[in-house]
Amino acid sequence: MDFLKYINQALDSQCYPALPQGLYEPIRYTLEGGGKRIRPVLLLTTAYAYGATPEQALPAAIAIETYHNHTLLHDDLMDQAALRRGRATVWTKWDANTAVLSGDTMLLRAMATLGQCQCERWDELYELFVSTFIGVCEGQQMDMNFEQMQADEVNISEYIEMIRLKTSILVACAAKAGGIIANAETEDCNLLYAFAEKVGLAFQLQDDMLDVWGDPAIFGKANGGDIACGKKTYPLLTAFSLTDSETRKELLKLINDKEASEAGRIKRVTEIYNSMQVRKACEEAVEAYYDEATALYNLLPLSEEKKLPIWQWAEALLGRQK
Amino acid sequence: MDFLKYINQALDSQCYPALPQGLYEPIRYTLEGGGKRIRPVLLLTTAYAYGATPEQALPAAIAIETYHNHTLLHDDLMDQAALRRGRATVWTKWDANTAVLSGDTMLLRAMATLGQCQCERWDELYELFVSTFIGVCEGQQMDMNFEQMQADEVNISEYIEMIRLKTSILVACAAKAGGIIANAETEDCNLLYAFAEKVGLAFQLQDDMLDVWGDPAIFGKANGGDIACGKKTYPLLTAFSLTDSETRKELLKLINDKEASEAGRIKRVTEIYNSMQVRKACEEAVEAYYDEATALYNLLPLSEEKKLPIWQWAEALLGRQK
Repeated sequence: MDFLKYINQALDSQCYPALPQGLYEPIRYTLEGGGKRIRPVLLLTTAYAYGATPEQALPAAIAIETYHNHTLLHDDLMDQAALRRGRATVWTKWDANTAVLSGDTMLLRAMATLGQCQCERWDELYELFVSTFIGVCEGQQMDMNFEQMQADEVNISEYIEMIRLKTSILVACAAKAGGIIANAETEDCNLLYAFAEKVGLAFQLQDDMLDVWGDPAIFGKANGGDIACGKKTYPLLTAFSLTDSETRKELLKLINDKEASEAGRIKRVTEIYNSMQVRKACEEAVEAYYDEATALYNLLPLSEEKKLPIWQWAEALLGRQK
Repeated sequence: MDFLKYINQALDSQCYPALPQGLYEPIRYTLEGGGKRIRPVLLLTTAYAYGATPEQALPAAIAIETYHNHTLLHDDLMDQAALRRGRATVWTKWDANTAVLSGDTMLLRAMATLGQCQCERWDELYELFVSTFIGVCEGQQMDMNFEQMQADEVNISEYIEMIRLKTSILVACAAKAGGIIANAETEDCNLLYAFAEKVGLAFQLQDDMLDVWGDPAIFGKANGGDIACGKKTYPLLTAFSLTDSETRKELLKLINDKEASEAGRIKRVTEIYNSMQVRKACEEAVEAYYDEATALYNLLPLSEEKKLPIWQWAEALLGRQK
């Protein structure tokens, strides 16, 4: 079964009230925006591996995707981002108030959809969702705090904790929720969570790397965007952790000096990264999470046939399939 | 038992993580702001009347108060209101992003607290809460839509629907939730809902009237604030429904002409209201809701002793007690 297609069909066939239009139109618009549906696909995949039907797992899958899109809607407002997946963001297409209120409504729709889930272990499922959603808010707050700090004031372990909360735990929640819905053993559910959490971390660090060294033709955007805007990323924080005080000063100046030529700043920061083998350090970190994920996957007490789709989900996400 | 004190103690003793401070400090600040705790007191009151203990009903009561404060936090941002209960609002004390994100987290905390409720009829309780919360968003959207319209474009029934959604249904939800938690008959739960909905409508219309005719010494603010800012209120919409086209034009000019003397505009609009017996029409509307509420209360199949506290809650809210 094509889970992505199944989810998109379910999202498309959702009914929203016609009025007030200013409330529901932005929600429809946001959910129409596409995306890889990483989280609901994973949820259906783990649920299916453990014997649940896609129908059983669908409400939770739709809930997690709706919640994820709620976070994008509110994050875009907070970050003042004009574009998302090539389309105008809600706060630019409508306005800030619309983004706040339709974002709130989306979160509530996610909770409503979750409530339709028939699940023997409802309390566990509900606690997982709500505590994960709160954790995601904590991650976003950490991210906003980092923006107010100098790059050399953020340490790598704090950064990892931020991306874990902001992105990984929602993926982990999806994996575990599938297990809970299929009534898998608690130990299996925890393995699924830990596995997906590591995959999520590997994915995020890889994403940070692609900004510097990715092939623009494949990656879809020019290199160095994060460098130009001085974003704290794993390569940058790694560079700070490896550098002497001279280069430290130069790096800080380069990322903060928005007056200077952007191309020149990107080129020089990349040179510094390359001179310090930052890429290698990043690759090693990605590999370490990948290896942890692999080990956790191997512990899942399912036949290879049953669990392979879970692995394939991770490989597709990390772009290792081809 | 003093339910207000019980709720305030429970709110004060809630634990929030210390970090990230920028996320949780605004939530603590908002919940410390006081207020009458109208909704959780009602919830405990109806639950108790139907035989539940305050302990059983407490999580739902805290959840509804937390949700209500979430709406205030986000509404103040959307309305750009600087003060709430005499204190700086979150978006002014911190910033807009903080208001968005700690508001989101508050909503999730409300959901988490609700999840702690041990209730035989959980599905019914959950559906009630989530659908009510969505309805409140719809009411806020309608209110924002009205702000973009001329006062003579809003009709009274739309206005009533807006205040019903924005304020009444949350009070109604509180009343019904108490019944559900106490495992009251469905019919009783529906009576509680309808009763509280009517009380909420009477309260809101009364509040609209107090802006024009209230005693500033008791009401706590000067008369005419709503008139000065051109807010669509029940008196204004009633005036439009009663007026000839000449006075209609004058009224529109008066409420829109922010250049002219505020005192003069308030005085003249009030004169127009008085010349048209708008006050009487408003009082009749309040009385009609009050009478409906009374009739619904009388239908509650409980001994007078048991149900009296529900009535006392309404009387206190409507200021009829003294």
